[in-house]
Amino acid sequence: MSLRAVALGGGHGLFNTLTALRYLTPDVTAVVTVADDGGSSGRLRNELGGVPPGDLRMALAALMAAPAAVADLEKTDPKAALAHKRWSRILQHRLGGYGALAGHPVGNLMLAGVEELTGDIVEALDAMVDLFGISGRVLPMAVEPLIIEADVTGLESDPRMSRVIRGQVAVATTPGKVRRVRVLPVAPDSCREAVEAIGAADVVTLGPGSWFSSVIPHVLVPGQLDALRRTAARKVLFVNLANEPGETTGFSVERHLHVLHAHADTFGVDDVIVDAASVPAGAERDHLERAAAAFGARLVVADLAVPGTHEHDPRKAAETMARLLS
Amino acid sequence: MSLRAVALGGGHGLFNTLTALRYLTPDVTAVVTVADDGGSSGRLRNELGGVPPGDLRMALAALMAAPAAVADLEKTDPKAALAHKRWSRILQHRLGGYGALAGHPVGNLMLAGVEELTGDIVEALDAMVDLFGISGRVLPMAVEPLIIEADVTGLESDPRMSRVIRGQVAVATTPGKVRRVRVLPVAPDSCREAVEAIGAADVVTLGPGSWFSSVIPHVLVPGQLDALRRTAARKVLFVNLANEPGETTGFSVERHLHVLHAHADTFGVDDVIVDAASVPAGAERDHLERAAAAFGARLVVADLAVPGTHEHDPRKAAETMARLLS
Repeated sequence: MSLRAVALGGGHGLFNTLTALRYLTPDVTAVVTVADDGGSSGRLRNELGGVPPGDLRMALAALMAAPAAVADLEKTDPKAALAHKRWSRILQHRLGGYGALAGHPVGNLMLAGVEELTGDIVEALDAMVDLFGISGRVLPMAVEPLIIEADVTGLESDPRMSRVIRGQVAVATTPGKVRRVRVLPVAPDSCREAVEAIGAADVVTLGPGSWFSSVIPHVLVPGQLDALRRTAARKVLFVNLANEPGETTGFSVERHLHVLHAHADTFGVDDVIVDAASVPAGAERDHLERAAAAFGARLVVADLAVPGTHEHDPRKAAETMARLLS
Repeated sequence: MSLRAVALGGGHGLFNTLTALRYLTPDVTAVVTVADDGGSSGRLRNELGGVPPGDLRMALAALMAAPAAVADLEKTDPKAALAHKRWSRILQHRLGGYGALAGHPVGNLMLAGVEELTGDIVEALDAMVDLFGISGRVLPMAVEPLIIEADVTGLESDPRMSRVIRGQVAVATTPGKVRRVRVLPVAPDSCREAVEAIGAADVVTLGPGSWFSSVIPHVLVPGQLDALRRTAARKVLFVNLANEPGETTGFSVERHLHVLHAHADTFGVDDVIVDAASVPAGAERDHLERAAAAFGARLVVADLAVPGTHEHDPRKAAETMARLLS
């Protein structure tokens, strides 16, 4: 049986992790945050009332367009490989023109429509997976749309004063410092299928990604946190290569770890993977090892970056995971 | 080899004819008018500049949801049969909510997006046919969006005075009498693939449907009219059961024929099929036979209606065609 992998995250970070995991196994399940309120996703959740489709659509496109997925198909069905390449581009394509539709990715509109008709986001995602012949599965972190709310300092003349900032876009772009995030409704129901996938997994990854809005929310869903604590899967945390502008400006790798731990101190992982170029050697690496130990994890320092960028190279991430799992 | 059928039309009339032809053969090509300027189609052609997708989307849904198509699949692949039923409903589903997206059918948004990305409506339609595993093909009558323009009387105090009314919605809802329609640009290029399909067909149908906006435009594309004149296919004209409100209010079956003939007097057909209940017996049936003879056609009077409605029953239309072709 193939390795069963589950990747938790959202946005571009999750896209990269899914691409990486697909090198290791065809059995990849994405579990995706549903708190986006910006752009097309924000518009669609407001107009139609479903979960924001953007991050889910990106995960579908990632599993479809992953080089390993396309290469698998090319061996058995070259026409299907071409169709995967074409349709992943179409799902990601944003409508043009000068009107109300401009900027909506085709896949967002499609997924929102299927969810509206079926009344069930999991059924809608499974229908998309079937239609496109995607290997793997995409699931939401929660079956209702969530709101991110943060305690933020640095917005008042008194720097110790904290204010509540609400909404993913607002939190991601606040000029203040995010101290803590919550999801609303507090303690939302988890997605049953996501909890089952975590329970049955051999490996579960979290991160990289927008730390407050795509990574931390995964430990704020009690049923999902419980599943993460109970699973026998190897749990791997990917820390961002560089600080995200906005959410975690100026955060060191160590601070990323502290902040996550502060949101769920019972959450444990087996491996904390950081990029060699992102962490200095010497005493600071010792601090980092202690921060990883707070999760019960060992620190794995590896070459992960696309040279000259702040992005993970999915091929390098896959090689690092393959070493861990072997 | 299966019978090769081509159906020309647009809207609900074409939907019914495609459903009917699908009882006879899996090899059905729809050739669809591209002059709609109302509702979702009108909005999309204005915003994105492509052909109006609505009638094309309906034709895709018709070929996918046709009872004969679903029954074929149920024999070999019950899961695919279910998917056909589900996705034809999704393509037709109009988004809800209270915003700018409300009322757009999911299939229109999808088709418009694929056309925008590929830059080619035929490639976009072929991609949809492949994706959904549709048997048959859907093609546009022309590869550019067209405008319907009509000479209309009865809009001035002098009833002989004619005015120009422009746009499909305006022509379909004018309180005046439509005398003649044109498409703009005049003499548009035909769709190469549609011309080829007509040339290779065993049977070509035209109508029923909105007479001025979905039927007559098919003889206003010179390349397509030429293909219709040259094809060895049996050509079958379905006349509407009852007058459409607006476009042909008060028109008799005979007048439908005269009006079509007046727009293309070199256009010939083999059979003019009319519903028994729509034509009186006696002298008027003689007039009708003469009107059909203007096309070089014989008149076929058959029971075609869904009882109590003004719609063709696709099953009855299929039986009538099967008799003609046997």
